[in-house]
Amino acid sequence: MFARIDHIGIAVTSIDEELALYEQTYEMEIAHREVIEQQGVEAVLLDIGESHVELLQPLGPGTPIGRFLDRRGPGVHHVAYQVADIDAELERLRDAGIQLIDQAPRTGIRGSRVAFCHPKSTGGVLTEIVEPAEAH
Amino acid sequence: MFARIDHIGIAVTSIDEELALYEQTYEMEIAHREVIEQQGVEAVLLDIGESHVELLQPLGPGTPIGRFLDRRGPGVHHVAYQVADIDAELERLRDAGIQLIDQAPRTGIRGSRVAFCHPKSTGGVLTEIVEPAEAH
Repeated sequence: MFARIDHIGIAVTSIDEELALYEQTYEMEIAHREVIEQQGVEAVLLDIGESHVELLQPLGPGTPIGRFLDRRGPGVHHVAYQVADIDAELERLRDAGIQLIDQAPRTGIRGSRVAFCHPKSTGGVLTEIVEPAEAH
Repeated sequence: MFARIDHIGIAVTSIDEELALYEQTYEMEIAHREVIEQQGVEAVLLDIGESHVELLQPLGPGTPIGRFLDRRGPGVHHVAYQVADIDAELERLRDAGIQLIDQAPRTGIRGSRVAFCHPKSTGGVLTEIVEPAEAH
């Protein structure tokens, strides 16, 4: 079961430029900032209700977010739902015929465990499930 | 101030086909279903935490969602944030230099008052603000 929208992942060319919009105009507060070398991104989480907006800036042009920006330009990159037990959810999604990008959970932002589903099997929406680390 | 993610608007070719994914696999419950002639869509709201997923099926090919599907295919169409006072928020966004698609609020789903901001001024994300009707 999906408990809530964990975050909306948004591809940006520059986090610092985009923060003018999200911090000043939208009045959201930064909850976390992290470079995730393995995924080739710098990410910022902004608080919005029980969810977050996640701004994603590529570390280079050949990274997944870099290629997304080349192809589509800035905008929504993925939608993430929070789950309590990612192992059970992954099993459930696999059994339902969802095409998994990650066959097993991997480490995401703030020590969470995450897995992505291919948009081909989720109505064109790149979809992530997230089991937060216990502290969050 | 934005209180929460009100909904994520997702363009689909067929609501009924997509409900297999959202109701059965994602286990979200339908909160509301409505044909909004003025916007050329049929829409379904599904519960997810304090937010909703909004599935949007075009009533015809020349509608905004119909053209979006032609251009981009199914996927995330817009992100909507909930506000308590849409008139004040629109004024604030206008003053901050955001390019408004709707200069004044109009009626949205379930009797809400809504307004859209142009993605050119919101980092490539078509962004809606929503003041819910009192019953919601």
